[in-house]
Amino acid sequence: MELLKQRILEQGQVLPGGIIKVGDFLNHMIDVRLADEIAREFVRRFAGKPISKVLTIEASGIAFGVLVALRLDVPLVFAKKQRGSNSGADTFYQARVHSYTKNIDYTMTVSKKYIMPEDHVLIVDDFLALGEAAQGMISLVDQAGAQLSGLGIVIEKAYQSGGQLLRAQGVKVESLARIQSVDNESITFVD
Amino acid sequence: MELLKQRILEQGQVLPGGIIKVGDFLNHMIDVRLADEIAREFVRRFAGKPISKVLTIEASGIAFGVLVALRLDVPLVFAKKQRGSNSGADTFYQARVHSYTKNIDYTMTVSKKYIMPEDHVLIVDDFLALGEAAQGMISLVDQAGAQLSGLGIVIEKAYQSGGQLLRAQGVKVESLARIQSVDNESITFVD
Repeated sequence: MELLKQRILEQGQVLPGGIIKVGDFLNHMIDVRLADEIAREFVRRFAGKPISKVLTIEASGIAFGVLVALRLDVPLVFAKKQRGSNSGADTFYQARVHSYTKNIDYTMTVSKKYIMPEDHVLIVDDFLALGEAAQGMISLVDQAGAQLSGLGIVIEKAYQSGGQLLRAQGVKVESLARIQSVDNESITFVD
Repeated sequence: MELLKQRILEQGQVLPGGIIKVGDFLNHMIDVRLADEIAREFVRRFAGKPISKVLTIEASGIAFGVLVALRLDVPLVFAKKQRGSNSGADTFYQARVHSYTKNIDYTMTVSKKYIMPEDHVLIVDDFLALGEAAQGMISLVDQAGAQLSGLGIVIEKAYQSGGQLLRAQGVKVESLARIQSVDNESITFVD
């Protein structure tokens, strides 16, 4: 998605360690026109796939999730992050996830009421790197016995293994900007 | 907003201690059609007020914030919740907030880049009870030297003091459903 790549080049910041900051327009302050274009692009890329729910994870995934869900006219479900031990396993699907960005473990939870076996679930998130959050959300969908329609990602760090692993699992992954490498202050995209 | 009140009566759950659960349609699974109607109603109620940014707090405020910002064609900024000590006071506006719902203290932060003195800020959030989160966000706006356009709230617990205090401060507070009382399983609205 050219518009998104341009904005990443113009406004993205590269910090030491290859951390990419897009808070100026994507996940702290949000350019809602761009976010809406992103949502439209996801809808185009998953056209023809049955989708009955959009699933994301708090917090920054919600902005994109709600816009995609609005265009598809289906409910948005967002998984919650919970520090500490697993409780409420009778009412929640849960997945234990390690965040490499924040170097913490957390439990991702979603109420069993909100994903049903007959659902076709599109997962939406802002970043894909090692795929920990994505695999956690896929686990929630699996636990519910629902169908996974695919994974819509705003920015994929293609130099990390998450996307490759997911595609090898047969998951339809659509990433709107795939970053091939980050060197000093320079970002290069795949293609 | 009648549509919202109906949904609260139909799908809201009252737990012991007067806790109101609206996860079925507002803040875990989100009915995006209803959320979009909520956003339109906020836009109507703040028509004529200058608004250059919408401010909310993660996580569930983001869904409403992004839809309001989209209709107003202004950026959405969301404050982040941070456990632990204040750090980064040079780059972030911060407010210390106590959450009575979760019985924790947290620091609300927003990058100084994203609220400027010339901004007119509309704050949007899903719940207003004692007003801790709202006062924290107002403090962020004040720290930035920006103007507060008002406060748009989806559900106000009018039997708690937050709304009254804010209105006494001269803040324009627009709550789409004002709950007067919660008894056993019965919810009564103001008016």
